[in-house]
Amino acid sequence: MVTPESVDKQAITEFFTGLQDRICQALEAADGARFHEDLYERAEGGGGRTRVLQNGNVIEKGGVLFSAVYGPASESVRKQMNAEGPVEFYATGVSIVLHPRNPLVPIIHMNVRYFELSTGDCWFGGGIDMSPHYIDADDARWFHRQLKTVCDRHHPDYYPKYKAWADDYFYIPHRSETRGIGGIFFDYLRPSDTRKKEDLFAFVQEVGNAFAPIYTHFMEKNNPLAYGEREKQWQFLRRGRYVEFNLVWDRGTKFGLESNGRTESILMSMPPQANWTYDFRPEPGSREEQTLNQLRKGINWADL
Amino acid sequence: MVTPESVDKQAITEFFTGLQDRICQALEAADGARFHEDLYERAEGGGGRTRVLQNGNVIEKGGVLFSAVYGPASESVRKQMNAEGPVEFYATGVSIVLHPRNPLVPIIHMNVRYFELSTGDCWFGGGIDMSPHYIDADDARWFHRQLKTVCDRHHPDYYPKYKAWADDYFYIPHRSETRGIGGIFFDYLRPSDTRKKEDLFAFVQEVGNAFAPIYTHFMEKNNPLAYGEREKQWQFLRRGRYVEFNLVWDRGTKFGLESNGRTESILMSMPPQANWTYDFRPEPGSREEQTLNQLRKGINWADL
Repeated sequence: MVTPESVDKQAITEFFTGLQDRICQALEAADGARFHEDLYERAEGGGGRTRVLQNGNVIEKGGVLFSAVYGPASESVRKQMNAEGPVEFYATGVSIVLHPRNPLVPIIHMNVRYFELSTGDCWFGGGIDMSPHYIDADDARWFHRQLKTVCDRHHPDYYPKYKAWADDYFYIPHRSETRGIGGIFFDYLRPSDTRKKEDLFAFVQEVGNAFAPIYTHFMEKNNPLAYGEREKQWQFLRRGRYVEFNLVWDRGTKFGLESNGRTESILMSMPPQANWTYDFRPEPGSREEQTLNQLRKGINWADL
Repeated sequence: MVTPESVDKQAITEFFTGLQDRICQALEAADGARFHEDLYERAEGGGGRTRVLQNGNVIEKGGVLFSAVYGPASESVRKQMNAEGPVEFYATGVSIVLHPRNPLVPIIHMNVRYFELSTGDCWFGGGIDMSPHYIDADDARWFHRQLKTVCDRHHPDYYPKYKAWADDYFYIPHRSETRGIGGIFFDYLRPSDTRKKEDLFAFVQEVGNAFAPIYTHFMEKNNPLAYGEREKQWQFLRRGRYVEFNLVWDRGTKFGLESNGRTESILMSMPPQANWTYDFRPEPGSREEQTLNQLRKGINWADL
């Protein structure tokens, strides 16, 4: 039971470390392979626990990262928050990207995070989104309905708002494509009179807890599906788009690389193999073309 | 013979289209495969001629691009140039990236460009740099001496200055590595009392003309060298670094993708296949480790 006074950064951090543990256990049980763990310390304060699984039975390469870092807030954070004078920040969260071996199993991404300033300002952020190499409408509907159920338990506005935010965020302007079928994305969820800190934390907890059942569902259901060389080649091209989004447009990756974060942890999101073919165009009417045509914002997957 | 009055944008553009032709011919002769050509028009003015060679005998994937684009200068260009009111720009150049099949043949990049504003301001830029998957000191010395010879014919300061500029430009901060062994890089070469426009153009022409003999030398000398699976795997990881540099740090790529350039032309620089392995560390004393140790700024390759 979460009580107002217990929702401090320590309680949130403890929830995140436990979440990382539980997710890794669930993924290991579904995959059969084990995560490798690296602990690291950040010179300026704090550190992280990076867990990576490579060459698993279902997961070809994936990472489940926990970090809790703190120290003096950067110039840009202080400006953004209109804070004058020295400000300390504390940031903690869990980030996940999983690249499956089978092209019929989708790539997934999850992040839950909490940020606090010594000025008293604090907020939550996060989300879950999925990038199938081949879009299957039933899978997409099921995925979005899971997220909608989680959201609806907290506020009827959450799902439509955070679904639209994911469409906007996970977009690749130079390709005019969404990264995948989206999901939910939210940021700057600050306590207020109508949304207490414990309520926001309860929502973020439920998003985090929803991850393992959602993804192990796809691991178990889709990994047995047969595929061939054609599907692998398409997967490599789609992973190329994933690389393009993460390196060119993703604010988290950009911020991490430019602010001297631990590169190997940040870039755990890179796929094991990605290919680029000049001006590749799928055959008209093919499943590859159908997928491309559905990489658009505003598709109401939950009701499709 | 270049005379002052003949160095206008038309003459420069014509040189660049001819350069693209001659380089493609030389590469086709050395490879045996043919370039595929795509012409495109830019909605705002101008266009380009993209030539791509895929699955060649020596070149696995590479592009030789010509473009000449014009129109109203963007807000940021006007600010940078302290220009008030509407300004028109004209930009033309040739860009090349070649990814060879054999890991013992280096990746190469070349760019020569000319920029002109309706304010009368104009400048040249460009350079050649090489990214060997395995650094060979003899190859690196030969490569840098070729560039030094070209530079020295124009000004004794050019090579040291533009060599250092390449070291700084082709650097991957989040890896603390240079992209390769560098080469030369120069920008904003503006006509002045001591450096006439025809002299600058003559220098840029010689840089452009130096490309084909330099790279076909490595195609012919290194392509016959034997390699195995280990070298291929290392090549895929090094190409991953190439992707990271181009998508995260390269100003030209960034500018192109953010300003609605033709994506397939800009991203012709992407390798056919790149791999990422979490926290890969080469064996102590291996050729892979030796290469990593030499991906540093300030190595005087020409005199080594």
